[in-house]
Amino acid sequence: MTSDVGSSAPTGTIRVAAAQINTAVGDIDGNARLIEKWIGLAEEQGADLVAFPELTITGYPPEDLVLYDNFIAANRAALGQVALLVGDIVALVGFVESEDGKLFNSAAVLHQRKIVATYRKIHLPNYGVFDERRYFTAGDECPVLSIRGIKIGVNVCEDIWEPVGPSEVQCAAGAQIIVNLNASPYESGKQGHRVEIVTGLSHRNRVYTLYVNQVGGQDELVFDGGSMLAGPSGELIGTAARFEESMLVADIDTGSLENLRLNHQAQAVPQDVLDGIAVASVVELDVPLPARRPRLPELSIHRLDRLEAVYRALIMGTADYLKKTGFGKVAIAVSGGIDSALVTAIAVDAIGAENVVGVALPSRYSSEGSVVDAEELCSRLGVELWRIPIEPGHGAFEEMLCEAFDGTEPGLSEENMQARIRGNLMMSIANKFGWLVMTTGNKSEMAIGYATLYGDMAGAYAVIKDVPKTLVYELCDHRNRRGPGSPIPRAIFDKPPSAELRSGQIDEDTLPPYDQLDRIIHMYIEERMSPDLVVQKEQALSEGGATEATVRRVVRLIDINEYKRRQSPPGVKITGLAFGKDRRLPIASGWQR
Amino acid sequence: MTSDVGSSAPTGTIRVAAAQINTAVGDIDGNARLIEKWIGLAEEQGADLVAFPELTITGYPPEDLVLYDNFIAANRAALGQVALLVGDIVALVGFVESEDGKLFNSAAVLHQRKIVATYRKIHLPNYGVFDERRYFTAGDECPVLSIRGIKIGVNVCEDIWEPVGPSEVQCAAGAQIIVNLNASPYESGKQGHRVEIVTGLSHRNRVYTLYVNQVGGQDELVFDGGSMLAGPSGELIGTAARFEESMLVADIDTGSLENLRLNHQAQAVPQDVLDGIAVASVVELDVPLPARRPRLPELSIHRLDRLEAVYRALIMGTADYLKKTGFGKVAIAVSGGIDSALVTAIAVDAIGAENVVGVALPSRYSSEGSVVDAEELCSRLGVELWRIPIEPGHGAFEEMLCEAFDGTEPGLSEENMQARIRGNLMMSIANKFGWLVMTTGNKSEMAIGYATLYGDMAGAYAVIKDVPKTLVYELCDHRNRRGPGSPIPRAIFDKPPSAELRSGQIDEDTLPPYDQLDRIIHMYIEERMSPDLVVQKEQALSEGGATEATVRRVVRLIDINEYKRRQSPPGVKITGLAFGKDRRLPIASGWQR
Repeated sequence: MTSDVGSSAPTGTIRVAAAQINTAVGDIDGNARLIEKWIGLAEEQGADLVAFPELTITGYPPEDLVLYDNFIAANRAALGQVALLVGDIVALVGFVESEDGKLFNSAAVLHQRKIVATYRKIHLPNYGVFDERRYFTAGDECPVLSIRGIKIGVNVCEDIWEPVGPSEVQCAAGAQIIVNLNASPYESGKQGHRVEIVTGLSHRNRVYTLYVNQVGGQDELVFDGGSMLAGPSGELIGTAARFEESMLVADIDTGSLENLRLNHQAQAVPQDVLDGIAVASVVELDVPLPARRPRLPELSIHRLDRLEAVYRALIMGTADYLKKTGFGKVAIAVSGGIDSALVTAIAVDAIGAENVVGVALPSRYSSEGSVVDAEELCSRLGVELWRIPIEPGHGAFEEMLCEAFDGTEPGLSEENMQARIRGNLMMSIANKFGWLVMTTGNKSEMAIGYATLYGDMAGAYAVIKDVPKTLVYELCDHRNRRGPGSPIPRAIFDKPPSAELRSGQIDEDTLPPYDQLDRIIHMYIEERMSPDLVVQKEQALSEGGATEATVRRVVRLIDINEYKRRQSPPGVKITGLAFGKDRRLPIASGWQR
Repeated sequence: MTSDVGSSAPTGTIRVAAAQINTAVGDIDGNARLIEKWIGLAEEQGADLVAFPELTITGYPPEDLVLYDNFIAANRAALGQVALLVGDIVALVGFVESEDGKLFNSAAVLHQRKIVATYRKIHLPNYGVFDERRYFTAGDECPVLSIRGIKIGVNVCEDIWEPVGPSEVQCAAGAQIIVNLNASPYESGKQGHRVEIVTGLSHRNRVYTLYVNQVGGQDELVFDGGSMLAGPSGELIGTAARFEESMLVADIDTGSLENLRLNHQAQAVPQDVLDGIAVASVVELDVPLPARRPRLPELSIHRLDRLEAVYRALIMGTADYLKKTGFGKVAIAVSGGIDSALVTAIAVDAIGAENVVGVALPSRYSSEGSVVDAEELCSRLGVELWRIPIEPGHGAFEEMLCEAFDGTEPGLSEENMQARIRGNLMMSIANKFGWLVMTTGNKSEMAIGYATLYGDMAGAYAVIKDVPKTLVYELCDHRNRRGPGSPIPRAIFDKPPSAELRSGQIDEDTLPPYDQLDRIIHMYIEERMSPDLVVQKEQALSEGGATEATVRRVVRLIDINEYKRRQSPPGVKITGLAFGKDRRLPIASGWQR
């Protein structure tokens, strides 16, 4: 990124760096080493200041680990160790601060081998996937740093998502640059919203804003980076790449601010925001201006196509879940359908074809086409495919249950039984060889319970559980277009979706068309609309709207299948509202409306 | 409860009732009918005031249901309907109040067909199993009711768990009685703690305190009731029975308070408590003094033995989970071991032997004693026992995996495979007949992952998942002593615990003795001690302490098995810290110390 041609830095200019790194929750020592490495890289770039993501030391979200005293002590000790390696540069590092039995989500200011100040996060999110008020006490001070006379306000994540917050208090106290440390999880379309927030903040306060976000997967969440610098006219100056570790380094000339601010009526900070929020005295930091520093490359603005962003989130989630839980290889039940095709492609792109084993598990009801399509898919992806017909198990179960089921008609029980024989085979293979089973259920199925608990839901990672079926098709098409190769055979797109658990079964025999289903799921789950409102919206469509009976049936299926979702493995959140921590509903519920 | 002999009520006396009812989360209409019924019962008893539990209308905890506008609207409409049926009595009913997009956990004061006032909960718990700051905004007013000149402060649950809170503000404003509406979940030993809180509040403020709690099971939680009245000298006057719907009705003569308060230096309320908490103007309620009312029975103080309380919690949890999810019958895999013996007894006591089917699933490794013991248990309990040997399935899986496993040694994979064949059989039976599978894993197994995911963990309700193995034995012994009958054969107590998944397998071959294991689990999980501290505590024991290696191995097993627990069915919380919402840890975690 740096050029080796030196340049003398202009006076009034500060070089700042946003280190967009991939920490691991709980790996305090590893995170500390990673921070040290990136401080070194920032120093090589001649940065005066380097900012790391929120809770850098512990990784985010550390959840109940922070309730263990020895975890807090280790996190504090690691911060002290990192501080010892910091010289003239100023490093902003997130950690859990403890005082009088209270915990704070803090940013430490490290400089010349000391922790010279801390900022305690004021706005603690406690909605969606966030539980910060379970752990943390809100801060009430807004220190401002001064580096060669340039004033910098530091705050954390949610602090800038309120219309008026600590940034405004810091700007009123003279801050020319706001540095905001984040752990902001990915969801489709969120980066655009972040850009609005950051540029809006910059514009209304005539201030530079350096936004640093982490990258990496953590259980249900993927952090996508997208760190950025916005200028005082509300312009986006540059961004870091998404879904990869990188560092955004920029020179900020604060001289230009004076003119801009001359004609700018600074926003008055309402009294209720100021209540209890004091600006701590300015912290003077002695950062010498280097005679020469490496020339920086031009900043650029990275943009990602909607489908590519989702696909990258799924790849990163998979790669990191495997790495962070210590698995090197996965097994996937490849049915010849569209869902397992997508999951197999994701797995290959995440960890390489040599670490993926496909298993075809045909039953007496499987079409020959299914196995042929699975073979073609795996062949194009370079994935080894095992073939284990389940008939011996199927027959044995019929034999074992013959007496118990005497006089009953075959039905759902017999269908689920086959899925569970497959689940057992997959888990047996994974247990035998130390692999991880990736499941292939999508959001549409998870929503309405069109999946077998302990059957196709058996596995450790459900990568596409937040991807609606219609988006599964789009992503497969995208994957074929983006390459490498065009691995997903046309036949897999073209055949009608089927669980193949009885003769001639087709999904749409029992389910509404997937475009209807996905619209209803989106409205009822993600938009939290009432069923009445969903009915209205569907009836207002000029064509293809679902009937009232269909809407009510889908809503009822969503409601009664909470018990299945509660036992499902984690997967990547890609929408505004995923299953899991994002949506907490009772299993035993009498609500029906 | 009432006597039919009338008595004229003394002046200065108020008759109060605590209606300890079993609401169902989400069943707004059903809850409204239940409230109306109990208002009628309170009227029959001549009560001036009847108090219901926290969030009576919605049931507790309603979780994300409150984020749906139509749910909030239905809850408000139901409250209005209930109000219309309220005449001279004053009814305190919990509901979700909505104003300007904010939600409040409120108590409505219903009187003469109107909602005459509301109190908004001030202290919102956001720890343990509670997420109230996810949903609610804290109130800032403490209205005081006046009934024939008697002053009553109403507040909600957590409000009295702080050393100084709204009760103190209300007492400073003249309250003679505090009525506190609760949804306080059971844990072993908690009722004693509640009595301390309630009598302590009464004593330090020289006030009567009426504490009303709900009963019933809701997913992971059981509410045990134990509603109570404490007097102004800190005496416990009476309690309701635990684990059943009932009403505590008492006459309170506030005349006696004057003398008591003469020599009592009222506690000063610190300014920071008063900040932002105003006492709303006193709400005058016109409740006529009846000429005659039924004589009340003597109040009594109900006490429950520790083991009986746990056992009742497990019964109530099971009965309510089944009722509230609509299942009438359960299937249990009865192995002949102590865990399935306890679960079968609980199921029988919860829903009757005729609604329980035991299934013995012997394998080639099962001892003949196992099946004999299972038969004897079921015979004593009057439970039908099916016998399905798993050898056909076991053989078929060996055949199906023969090629894939060629050249490997039998191990964990082959053991889990058997458990999963059993899981599939149990689920197939449950699916076929519309029953629910109860699993039999205890807390010790859930902690260290000594259970097979999708095998013995397959089922909808894991009733003893928070019961450590040593307590399983105690509870079985207690069940035999309490009756009815003495269903658990001695042989089940006496044999060494074994999963019987390979020849001659005994739990203690691979696990530390259960008394050591349970102590370590208690310290590391429930007390949140560091492993170092657990080692110290064990080494300080005069005999039987675990070695450092054992402690570290157990802690490591607990840490790495989070993924299994995440996919386990819910069960009853009985300890201070259960798995589930009570303990939120990352699956992918680098923390090891």
